[in-house]
Amino acid sequence: MSKVGIIAYGTTPFTKEDHKIESILHKSTNDLFQKNPNIDKKEIDAVLVSTNNNSKYLSPILSEMTGIQPKIAHSIESLCNSGTNSIVSAFAYISSGLADMVLISGAERYDSPGQILEWDNSRGEFKHPIFWASIFSKSYKQKFGISDEELAIVSVKNHKQAKENPNALSKKTYTIQDVVNSKKLTEDLRLLDCSRPCTGSASILLASEEVVRKNTDRPVWITGIGQKTTSAGFTKNNSLSSMESTKIAGQSALKMANHTISDIDVAEVHDAFSVCEPMALESLGFVNPGKGMSIINDLHETNNFKINPRGGLIGTGHPLGATGISQTIEIVQQLQKSAEKRQTDNAEVGLIHNMSAAATSSTVLVLEK
Amino acid sequence: MSKVGIIAYGTTPFTKEDHKIESILHKSTNDLFQKNPNIDKKEIDAVLVSTNNNSKYLSPILSEMTGIQPKIAHSIESLCNSGTNSIVSAFAYISSGLADMVLISGAERYDSPGQILEWDNSRGEFKHPIFWASIFSKSYKQKFGISDEELAIVSVKNHKQAKENPNALSKKTYTIQDVVNSKKLTEDLRLLDCSRPCTGSASILLASEEVVRKNTDRPVWITGIGQKTTSAGFTKNNSLSSMESTKIAGQSALKMANHTISDIDVAEVHDAFSVCEPMALESLGFVNPGKGMSIINDLHETNNFKINPRGGLIGTGHPLGATGISQTIEIVQQLQKSAEKRQTDNAEVGLIHNMSAAATSSTVLVLEK
Repeated sequence: MSKVGIIAYGTTPFTKEDHKIESILHKSTNDLFQKNPNIDKKEIDAVLVSTNNNSKYLSPILSEMTGIQPKIAHSIESLCNSGTNSIVSAFAYISSGLADMVLISGAERYDSPGQILEWDNSRGEFKHPIFWASIFSKSYKQKFGISDEELAIVSVKNHKQAKENPNALSKKTYTIQDVVNSKKLTEDLRLLDCSRPCTGSASILLASEEVVRKNTDRPVWITGIGQKTTSAGFTKNNSLSSMESTKIAGQSALKMANHTISDIDVAEVHDAFSVCEPMALESLGFVNPGKGMSIINDLHETNNFKINPRGGLIGTGHPLGATGISQTIEIVQQLQKSAEKRQTDNAEVGLIHNMSAAATSSTVLVLEK
Repeated sequence: MSKVGIIAYGTTPFTKEDHKIESILHKSTNDLFQKNPNIDKKEIDAVLVSTNNNSKYLSPILSEMTGIQPKIAHSIESLCNSGTNSIVSAFAYISSGLADMVLISGAERYDSPGQILEWDNSRGEFKHPIFWASIFSKSYKQKFGISDEELAIVSVKNHKQAKENPNALSKKTYTIQDVVNSKKLTEDLRLLDCSRPCTGSASILLASEEVVRKNTDRPVWITGIGQKTTSAGFTKNNSLSSMESTKIAGQSALKMANHTISDIDVAEVHDAFSVCEPMALESLGFVNPGKGMSIINDLHETNNFKINPRGGLIGTGHPLGATGISQTIEIVQQLQKSAEKRQTDNAEVGLIHNMSAAATSSTVLVLEK
C-alpha cells in the first residue's frame, strides 16, 4: 500500500449565518487554493463532498465552480462522521492507484437534516440526539459517581480552547456554574453541554507519496485507519457508558500505525456532548473506564491543549459534514507546529476520533509527520 | 493492485410500488444472501449504499437490518451514476487493502429527489432532465439527419428486450408508430423515448482475489475502470450530439483492461432517453459519429441482445441509485451464461456505461471472466 499524505487545507469560519451549501463548499476550497497557489488543479483526480445536505450532484457542482475536471466525483454521507469517511475513501482511491490527488470538501448548514434521527425506534418519540446524550449522561454519571459539576469541566475547557481558534463558533468562556445553570434540556443535559449545529465548511487535499513530496516540504501522513459500525440503533450494542465502535476503531488504527495509545501527543475526540469526551478517552484507551474526567481536569488546570485543541465540537460548533475534516486539519496544524496559541508541546503523533449517532459507528485516524 | 471480483448479486423487481427505501435495500440484499447461503456475513468489511434518497445513515441501518457489523459504512450519491461510483469506491477499498469483501446496495423510490436538477442555470426554468434530452435529440437529429421514426427504434428494441427480463418495469412491446405517437413531452421527445423513474433496488458483493476464489467457482473480474466529470451544467462541455465524459471514461477503462472496443461482446449503455443510446455507442467508439442507429437497427432486426440486453433504462426502468448496479449484474449474468432468454453469444468481455445529468459525468467498467 503506497503512503498517503495531506498537502493542503482550507476552511470557513463556523457561524450561524445562512449560506447556500454550494457557496460554503466553494469558500473553503478557495481558501485551500489561495493558501497553496502552486497546486495544479489539473492534477486533481477526485473530488469528494462530505455532507448531510439534501442537494444532489454537489461534487460536480463544486468541481465546475472551482475549475476542476476530476475523474471521480461523488458525495459521501454517514451523519456526523461523513468527514472522516470521506478521508478514508480518498485514502483508498489513492492507495489503490485510481487517484493521485483527491480534494475533499465537507460542509453543512445550521439547519442540516442530519440532526434528526428518524429511524431508531429505540428512542421512542425522541428523534433528536439530545435524548441519547441524556441517557448516556445519566448512565455514565450513575455508574462512575460523576456529578454534573464535574462533567461540566468538558464544556468549560473546550469553550476556553475555542477562544484561541479564530474559526470557532463560540467566542465566549464559561464557568462551571454557567454550564450547570444553563438552559435545562433534559434532567441530565444542559444547553452548554451540547455542541451546536452551525454553518461551515472545511476542505483538505490528499495525495500519493510522490505527489506529496512534489508539493510540500512539510507533509503529514495518514498512518492509521480504524472504522467500525456496530448498529444504527443506539440501545443495541452500547453499554450506555462506553463506546464499543470507538474501542474497535481505535485499536485497529493504532495497530495499523504501529503505535500504542501512549504514543499519541495530541487528539481530537468527538465531544458532541460533554459526556462523550471522557467516554471517548476511555474507549480509546487513554485512561481506564470512569477515569476520563481526571485527565480532562488535569489538562484544564494546567492549560494543556492536548485533547481537542481547536475547542472540540462544543467550542468550535458542529457542521456535521465538515467536522471530521476540521478535526483532521487541526491535527495537521498541530503536527506542523502552526497551531499558534493552541499549539501543544512535542506534537509528533496525532489522533482523530469522529463518530455518528450515539457512537453506533466510529472512525479513528492516526496522523504523523 | 490486487484483483477485484464479483461473487454475488441480488435484486428486487423494478415497479411503481410505494416502498420505504430501507425496505427495498433490505429486499435486494436478502435476495443476494438467499441466492448465496454460504457467504459469511462476518467477513463483510464494508457496506455502501448508493442512492439519491434524502434518508440519512442508510448504510448502518441496512447493516443492522441484515446482521452485518462492517468497518466501513456510508452512502454515495452522484445522481444517475451513483451505482457505478459505489462499485468503483468498493474496488478502491478492496484493492487498497482496507477491505476484503464489500456489499453495495443501491435503491431508489419512484419519487426520487434526484429527478429534479436544481442548480443548472443553463436550463433556465427547465429543471427536469427531459429538457436536456430534448435539446440533445434535436441537435443529434439535425446534425446527422436522423428522423423521429429512426430514433424510435431504440425504444422499440429496448422494450422488446425488457420482455425477457423478469425484473423490468416494462411488460409491453411497442411499434415505431406507438413510440412516435406516444404523448408529446416536447417538440423532440415522446413519452416512450424516456426511461421512467421507479422503485427498485440492486445489490452486489465485491471481494479481493483470495476471497473471490474461496466463495465462487465462476467469478467475474472488474478489469477496467474509467471515470470523468466534465462539468455540472450541460451546456458547458458537451457538443450536444456527443458525450465527452463518456469518451474519456471509455478510453480509460479499455486502456486499463488492455482491450479495444472491438473486444466488447456485450454492453449496458445508459439510455436514459432514446437519443442517449446511439450517442453513447458513438462516444464509446463502437461506431463512428452519426452511425449509432445503424448498429442499433442491425441488432434489432437480427434479434441480437448485445446492447442493453436487460432492456436498458427505457425498458427496465430507472431507479437512479440502483441502475448502475443493475447494469453490472446484467453483465455478470451474461458472462456467466445465466442470462436465459437474454443471453448473447460468446459473451467473454462486457462493458457498463453509466452517466449522470446530460453526460456531464460518466463511469465505464469492463468486466471479464
